[in-house]
Amino acid sequence: MIIVNTGNGKGKTTAAIGQIIRSLGRGWKVCLVQLFKGKEFYGEQHILRKLKNLDFYSFAPKHPFCFPEVSKKKASEQCRAALAFFRTITEEKPGHYQLIVLEEFIIAIREGYIALDELLKTLDAVPDNTHVLLTGRGAPRELIRKADLVTEMKEIKHPFSKGQRAQKGIEF
Amino acid sequence: MIIVNTGNGKGKTTAAIGQIIRSLGRGWKVCLVQLFKGKEFYGEQHILRKLKNLDFYSFAPKHPFCFPEVSKKKASEQCRAALAFFRTITEEKPGHYQLIVLEEFIIAIREGYIALDELLKTLDAVPDNTHVLLTGRGAPRELIRKADLVTEMKEIKHPFSKGQRAQKGIEF
Repeated sequence: MIIVNTGNGKGKTTAAIGQIIRSLGRGWKVCLVQLFKGKEFYGEQHILRKLKNLDFYSFAPKHPFCFPEVSKKKASEQCRAALAFFRTITEEKPGHYQLIVLEEFIIAIREGYIALDELLKTLDAVPDNTHVLLTGRGAPRELIRKADLVTEMKEIKHPFSKGQRAQKGIEF
Repeated sequence: MIIVNTGNGKGKTTAAIGQIIRSLGRGWKVCLVQLFKGKEFYGEQHILRKLKNLDFYSFAPKHPFCFPEVSKKKASEQCRAALAFFRTITEEKPGHYQLIVLEEFIIAIREGYIALDELLKTLDAVPDNTHVLLTGRGAPRELIRKADLVTEMKEIKHPFSKGQRAQKGIEF
């Protein structure tokens, strides 16, 4: 099953983390591939790193928008490496993971760092007994069409819009 | 801060679980109060139970809709006990928890098992250094007004609507 968490609201990543915890609780093997998330930046990473049956990889830790010293070319190379990694595990370890989470891959598509076609082709090669969960705002129509379960996390109210900064423990 | 995860889509509970993991990763003390969730039913419970700094309580494990042998009166008593418990920890241990998660309390309000007024009054008494996250579809307007951060998890596509049953590891 292909699952998509999209939308402009809070909850895309935390719902993915919660899904990982639920799946691990069933004894599943889970692979998390994160984009644009510094390895030490997010609170959840300290807990996830210790959990059994979870393999955790991080690519393109610095997004050019936040780190102007990182070129778009560099970010694109790193995102393409992440997609190649996803392709490798689906080809070389088919069915090894019951859940693969592709964090912020939708952002990488939206910004043109990876090609939608290539991602869709790789998703086609995933065996039926592996679920793939993708996150990121602005999911393209073709991905929504291919997915089985899509949730839009829609912002109704957020303190950011009142100018409040991201809070440690809540947003990261 | 008061946070609300509502809407008809998947992700309200998993986002709450993910939020708990993030907060625990910051060394926060977290209290999870669940309604309508059998203690052994959800995959995540097996992992959550082992985590340090998380106190985990379950009330009204059987919802009358799923278990007709449970009367609405019984369910209402159990939900009111959960609300009383929440009130007790905010009064007797103010600031002890940095995050309190009230799972499905919005359902309990919607079904009249607990009174919205009483919940709102209890939320008013929560100290500023404690965040409260409430989940459940159909959040009432008064709660949204009081909350600082509200996300609607909106169903765009779900296999349930094609008649597929809930999948272990994904939905529970």
